[in-house]
Amino acid sequence: LRAYLRREFETILFSGDLDKTTAAFILATTAAASGMDVSIFFTFWGLNILKKSTATSPKNIMQKMLAFMTHKTPISRLNMLGMGPWMLKKLMKKSNMPSLEELMKLAKQLKVKYIACTTSCGVMGIAKENLTEDVDEFAGASTYLAQAKDAKVNLFI
Amino acid sequence: LRAYLRREFETILFSGDLDKTTAAFILATTAAASGMDVSIFFTFWGLNILKKSTATSPKNIMQKMLAFMTHKTPISRLNMLGMGPWMLKKLMKKSNMPSLEELMKLAKQLKVKYIACTTSCGVMGIAKENLTEDVDEFAGASTYLAQAKDAKVNLFI
Amino acid sequence: LRAYLRREFETILFSGDLDKTTAAFILATTAAASGMDVSIFFTFWGLNILKKSTATSPKNIMQKMLAFMTHKTPISRLNMLGMGPWMLKKLMKKSNMPSLEELMKLAKQLKVKYIACTTSCGVMGIAKENLTEDVDEFAGASTYLAQAKDAKVNLFI
Repeated sequence: LRAYLRREFETILFSGDLDKTTAAFILATTAAASGMDVSIFFTFWGLNILKKSTATSPKNIMQKMLAFMTHKTPISRLNMLGMGPWMLKKLMKKSNMPSLEELMKLAKQLKVKYIACTTSCGVMGIAKENLTEDVDEFAGASTYLAQAKDAKVNLFI
Repeated sequence: LRAYLRREFETILFSGDLDKTTAAFILATTAAASGMDVSIFFTFWGLNILKKSTATSPKNIMQKMLAFMTHKTPISRLNMLGMGPWMLKKLMKKSNMPSLEELMKLAKQLKVKYIACTTSCGVMGIAKENLTEDVDEFAGASTYLAQAKDAKVNLFI
Repeated sequence: LRAYLRREFETILFSGDLDKTTAAFILATTAAASGMDVSIFFTFWGLNILKKSTATSPKNIMQKMLAFMTHKTPISRLNMLGMGPWMLKKLMKKSNMPSLEELMKLAKQLKVKYIACTTSCGVMGIAKENLTEDVDEFAGASTYLAQAKDAKVNLFI
């Protein structure tokens, strides 16, 4: 029973880039669909994909700038040409791949656990009410580590 | 015996950057040389280093553009100055380090297993015959996860 | 006893970017503070944060250029606007977060083990005496792998 209950696939999602977040959610949904217990620890730029579109502005000017500069999910490699995210989305659609939004919906249906890093939220000026209700828990690195210690697969994406 | 047979070092190679792919192959060959069972799951940009130079063009215009834009292996950090890959190659040669091509040859001699992600191949318009014969298996995320669950070291590079 | 002594949290620090190095040190110090045995394997750009400010110049012209081009720790995402590192430092201070320098001091107090990759040092022209005394060991990938095999959490940052 203990073996069944333990968190089996645990990834840190540090990146907010479209290609890396897509890869993270393909892995997370596939793991959950095959019966693994899955959680994602969202930190730094990874928190951006959890923001509500109606999120209120952060308090100070630098946090405002940070929010503005990281508004759209870029793609880690092709972004300099500006067309990366648009192209990846089109290609995924053509191949009948679910979009990031659809993968994220699927993840919640499959009970993938979302943990939002409280430290990063503080630094980036993100209030709890600005993140989607899909977040299951707000916690710091020590909570992540306690779970990661028992996970079978740990990744940093 | 089971312990001996289990996949011990398993890495996802997501990046196609020269510095990261080099790091991945140094780890993979070192692990294999010390008797570990090693496999690499090539996905997204990581697939680019498996392409044959004689690869036929992908079908649609966006896949063609993607192939063109990712033709040369850049280096994640210095690329903006354009000289990154050239410099890293020179420095590795000066230090009598094997090149990426030599590390990849060594990897096959040491029986490092190459798994190419079918999903990524589909999205990026890469046909099986366009990848080198070194690929041992075409498989999706579920195959990767089934192996990763039993591996001692899992990385995402 | 053996369980107590084994290296529990082991990360490769490949990146020299301020955001990623900060994330790595938050994880490492948190792990060490909660009683885990922690080590960091510094390789490629990750070695830059271990350099003494009084480091002598590397020998050849390409290594000199490499040292110059990677002098300041950039931030992986916002660097193109030039203000990334400055902004992250300010935001961390505002949130009463320790700086990277303070996290690194804390890491040594908590006995986090620093292993510097000898191969990378060779390629990048970094002499042992140019790295801080905080380095506990100079070793290659095989030493890293021998430890990683027994670690509970392995990451590539």
